[in-house]
Amino acid sequence: MSQPPTDIEALIALMARLPGLGPRSARRAVLHLIRKRGQVMLPLATAMAEVARSVQECGRCGNLSSTPLCPICTDPRREGAEICVVEDIADLWAMERGGSFRGRYHVLGGTLSALDAVGPEDLRIPALVGRINDEGVSEVILALNATVDGQTTAHYIQDALALTGVRISALAQGVPMGGELDFLDDGTISAALKARKIIPGA
Amino acid sequence: MSQPPTDIEALIALMARLPGLGPRSARRAVLHLIRKRGQVMLPLATAMAEVARSVQECGRCGNLSSTPLCPICTDPRREGAEICVVEDIADLWAMERGGSFRGRYHVLGGTLSALDAVGPEDLRIPALVGRINDEGVSEVILALNATVDGQTTAHYIQDALALTGVRISALAQGVPMGGELDFLDDGTISAALKARKIIPGA
Repeated sequence: MSQPPTDIEALIALMARLPGLGPRSARRAVLHLIRKRGQVMLPLATAMAEVARSVQECGRCGNLSSTPLCPICTDPRREGAEICVVEDIADLWAMERGGSFRGRYHVLGGTLSALDAVGPEDLRIPALVGRINDEGVSEVILALNATVDGQTTAHYIQDALALTGVRISALAQGVPMGGELDFLDDGTISAALKARKIIPGA
Repeated sequence: MSQPPTDIEALIALMARLPGLGPRSARRAVLHLIRKRGQVMLPLATAMAEVARSVQECGRCGNLSSTPLCPICTDPRREGAEICVVEDIADLWAMERGGSFRGRYHVLGGTLSALDAVGPEDLRIPALVGRINDEGVSEVILALNATVDGQTTAHYIQDALALTGVRISALAQGVPMGGELDFLDDGTISAALKARKIIPGA
């Protein structure tokens, strides 16, 4: 069959490789783009080519940046003595949306995994150890996911940093905002109970 | 907050305007693209710009094409005496995937709608009437969606073509392939019963 035309077919095939889009939704997306050629399709193509050309990893923290060092690493108002360790860029963005962390980051780029042969060097852990010494860091905040892989990696980092003497902390575990006990897993409830806080004056 | 960088932020905002992607999945898609800059992101940007530049509507049937007349309209092996009327390009592609229609198409570009002020001229219905006379068409197959709007439009087209004397047909209604009666709506079951076929020799 000759439909859709080859170039559109190729575009659909590329779109279908995006996470969250299958062949069907890629077709819908491409038809939508074609309908909005001027307002969406051309700007999107330009923005994509532009980002592909300019984006690079920050040489210090691993954040995405259009400059050799990212805006967070070069911002003098950010607290250099605190480093927040995250698994990937999406987690860094999530922390920034939270808006209350004023230190700097270290993006691991994944978690340790024997199965996928991901070792400490792949995760920029030696670079983290180097930063502790070079930048006068006083606290490392581990903001890794509360998954088995995340926690394994957190333990590994604790060991790797033991000799530096830096203070190490981790995000608190507990009931999330708006969380209903009935819908929470048992592990979260246990953790929240163990970490319960005395209400002063009560 | 300064994250993600402005150009990536702009790209995420554009991606989030695609149907089927929200802000969260647009972020995931963009991070995926950045990770696969060479294999996916640049080819996608190029394909998109290329399609945006080259794609146009076939002057006869309304199909997408990179030439003034689309490959189906210019293919001498396609039966010019049969025109299949569809609502939009996605429906044309669906018919072509079916693979058994050997005639040509007429893409309406929507359905009649008083609410959205879509009239017969917006749907290329006058162009359809013109084609009946010009191209020696003997049968018009209405392949409109089995929705209220689709069926209203089908009735309007029947009226508009009445004077031409052309034969008009519509896709059969009934139980879809693999359909289970228990999961079908009552309308489909009634339609399938009304259109039941005698099994010869039984």
